[in-house]
Amino acid sequence: MASKVTVDPVKLTQFSAKILQKVGVPGEDAEITARMLVAADLRGIDTHGVSHLGSFYVKRIKEGFINPTPQIKMESHAQATAVVDGDRGLGFVVGHYAMTEALKRAGQTGAGFVSVRNSTHYGAASTYAMMAPPKNMIGISLTTGGRGMVAPGSVGRGAGINVISVAIPTQGNAAPFVLDMATTVVPLSKFEILLRSGETTIPEGWAVDKAGKPLTDPKKYAEEGALLPLGGLPVTGAFKGFGLSVMVDILCSILAGSASISELLTQPNTVLRANHFFGALKIDGFMPADDFARAMAGMVKVYHDLPKAPGVERIYLAGEVEYEIENQRRHGIPLDPQVIDSLRKLAAELGVEYDL
Amino acid sequence: MASKVTVDPVKLTQFSAKILQKVGVPGEDAEITARMLVAADLRGIDTHGVSHLGSFYVKRIKEGFINPTPQIKMESHAQATAVVDGDRGLGFVVGHYAMTEALKRAGQTGAGFVSVRNSTHYGAASTYAMMAPPKNMIGISLTTGGRGMVAPGSVGRGAGINVISVAIPTQGNAAPFVLDMATTVVPLSKFEILLRSGETTIPEGWAVDKAGKPLTDPKKYAEEGALLPLGGLPVTGAFKGFGLSVMVDILCSILAGSASISELLTQPNTVLRANHFFGALKIDGFMPADDFARAMAGMVKVYHDLPKAPGVERIYLAGEVEYEIENQRRHGIPLDPQVIDSLRKLAAELGVEYDL
Repeated sequence: MASKVTVDPVKLTQFSAKILQKVGVPGEDAEITARMLVAADLRGIDTHGVSHLGSFYVKRIKEGFINPTPQIKMESHAQATAVVDGDRGLGFVVGHYAMTEALKRAGQTGAGFVSVRNSTHYGAASTYAMMAPPKNMIGISLTTGGRGMVAPGSVGRGAGINVISVAIPTQGNAAPFVLDMATTVVPLSKFEILLRSGETTIPEGWAVDKAGKPLTDPKKYAEEGALLPLGGLPVTGAFKGFGLSVMVDILCSILAGSASISELLTQPNTVLRANHFFGALKIDGFMPADDFARAMAGMVKVYHDLPKAPGVERIYLAGEVEYEIENQRRHGIPLDPQVIDSLRKLAAELGVEYDL
Repeated sequence: MASKVTVDPVKLTQFSAKILQKVGVPGEDAEITARMLVAADLRGIDTHGVSHLGSFYVKRIKEGFINPTPQIKMESHAQATAVVDGDRGLGFVVGHYAMTEALKRAGQTGAGFVSVRNSTHYGAASTYAMMAPPKNMIGISLTTGGRGMVAPGSVGRGAGINVISVAIPTQGNAAPFVLDMATTVVPLSKFEILLRSGETTIPEGWAVDKAGKPLTDPKKYAEEGALLPLGGLPVTGAFKGFGLSVMVDILCSILAGSASISELLTQPNTVLRANHFFGALKIDGFMPADDFARAMAGMVKVYHDLPKAPGVERIYLAGEVEYEIENQRRHGIPLDPQVIDSLRKLAAELGVEYDL
């Protein structure tokens, strides 16, 4: 396998923004999108970063499925809550707008919640939740995903690979607590990672075939696979993963005036369609943020100090692995040669200078 | 096995309230507690109902661990949020107080969130979340549980068997959507149910021994067991269950000014101690509640209509099984003979007429 190419995150952001502008995304929106794509790469969430710039976003804008110049609309009937219509805009732009609104409302009343219909794939859910901790707030970011989960008692894909992210501030320079989880055992992107790394089988317990039997050949997934809900089988908690998926669907879709994602994604040309739900809680509305940060540090220590299993050096809380990666990548993000190729190709196609 | 005894839910509530009054719980608080215990029995959550009236609650009040006459205090620094100190009161009383406050605040601003320290075991989490749907609100109820989860990378019990419940209104007489899930693969109460039904082994994937190996003898659990996080092993998502557990700990404990539950429960005489977090979102703050209810009915139908696996007659959404049970039990709750015995004994001990 060819070795990785390390690129500067600032340059990568500028480059990605230029690409997006070339397909009609206005300057500021292109910058927001580029920043959020690169934020995922910085945290090691390589499947939600610039690797999809061309194949997902630029392609779908060109095909007309994503609207590069959406008229985002907001409606609100209470101080703490609102609904946003994303007008099929880039999920990054719509998501950034809606999370900003949730944070603003939380600043006023202590809590802010915004449900979003008519958006598209918004990248990594945590990118939005993480807008909250620097403001001493707890951030929540939920999104519908592809229709790829098998519901307990059913066969085939029926429920959404919906995602839950919650970000909570800690003290000083410690990693914020950042949960970012698909409601399936694994997200579909794990297949991509395995296939890229040369693996030819996936572990039992991730997916099933059209008859509901374990599927371990990732190449068969596209044709007849479905992902198991978090919990796996009913005896080990599948109803919980399915329940969480439906809960996310309700908060993102129904509460925003959209159809259920499971219904929506059976319609033509809706592959990238998504609904979201954002929330923010102001720490100061409960207790002084400094005291909270101190107590968080104490809690983190309690979990870190748990006895280690043989061979384990440390216990990781949600977000700590990604934080370590971010600290390593701040001055250079290693990209796969295929990703570099795709960016070069994009640059050539759209007449942008390739300067990474 | 001796057959079940069917009791009238209204009589059972009155009886339970009288028992509680006999150990010093004031009239209204005793009624709230009795109502919430019986609500769990009505929904088939037998492990969180009157079966524990004597062994958990009365016992712990007598021993002084639960305060029958707490001075509940509230502090608030924003319209939508508050912190409650439960003064070691019955979790039912403290929880009912705090959820009522969350609903009140949601009525005003659209969202209400209350974090609660210094409480005790509050029964079934869904009992509080379900206070929201009749008010056209979405209800959230989180609680810390016992320190019984093994953290990924650790051995032994280190994290909380913390619980998440979310209740969402649907249309007319349809079952509300009610998720009520421990963040472990199974709650500890599943062991109780299995043992009561005469089983001698538990499925692999629920618990591990002190070395981290699968534990299938439920009798060994007390001495050296720990429950696996939802997801089971790291390869099938254990970090998600663990992450959800820590998230609940933060929202219930840290945000309320308590120590982490994992720290708290290592101290003496804290076995029933618990912290909670309640939330409410007003549907009307997002969209008209009638439209929401109609859309919910549509969504439920989409999931119900998914293709069924061989032998499966219907797909159940979260809360639907419990709703069916509640409809059956409205005029009579079948109780195990051991439970009947324990209630008779309680009545004799405390000088309450046994009239069930």
